[in-house]
Amino acid sequence: MERVRDTNAITAGREEKLAKHGLFETPNFFADVYVLRPGQAQAVHTHGGEDKCYHVLSGRGRITSGDEVVEAGPGTIVWCPAGAPHGVENPEGGEDLRLLVFMAPHPRLA
Amino acid sequence: MERVRDTNAITAGREEKLAKHGLFETPNFFADVYVLRPGQAQAVHTHGGEDKCYHVLSGRGRITSGDEVVEAGPGTIVWCPAGAPHGVENPEGGEDLRLLVFMAPHPRLA
Repeated sequence: MERVRDTNAITAGREEKLAKHGLFETPNFFADVYVLRPGQAQAVHTHGGEDKCYHVLSGRGRITSGDEVVEAGPGTIVWCPAGAPHGVENPEGGEDLRLLVFMAPHPRLA
Repeated sequence: MERVRDTNAITAGREEKLAKHGLFETPNFFADVYVLRPGQAQAVHTHGGEDKCYHVLSGRGRITSGDEVVEAGPGTIVWCPAGAPHGVENPEGGEDLRLLVFMAPHPRLA
């Protein structure tokens, strides 16, 4: 696994659903870049034991963390505590939404 | 603890040493923004059990991860595996270096 990545170069979306590009993973955590085309979403869901953060790299979207729904743009970071329902949506009509995503611990490797 | 932060608004450095601005923390992880003025550094050091990532928000610097020394700019992300010596330096003569930093698990709360 490479230790260095350029997030600027990770821009590819997918036609059928949001794209998840893995950066790093260990039992302690994973880091991904998600690319959501306009109209795509990660449906609200819950992890029992893992904390997650979404950091907006580019584009705009709507991020849910528990009872909060955040209109997020570049530089916004949202923490989704373990056990809190969370998700993200890129509304129709804008540009791609690129997110740096951290989760700890890793839900499958820990 | 707020669940939403705007990293664009976190720019304050400190005269005496690098500034660490805490965003979120749980036993699973912490997220900080570091601001290093030109000439400041976080000396190379090692954590036995925690993984760390440095993601450059703005500025340029030199990030060490084990045997690798990376000339990093906005969008670069560097993974520092548990047990690997790591650090970061903002050379003299440039602008402030702002980093989004993740560590998992939390070295004091876990």
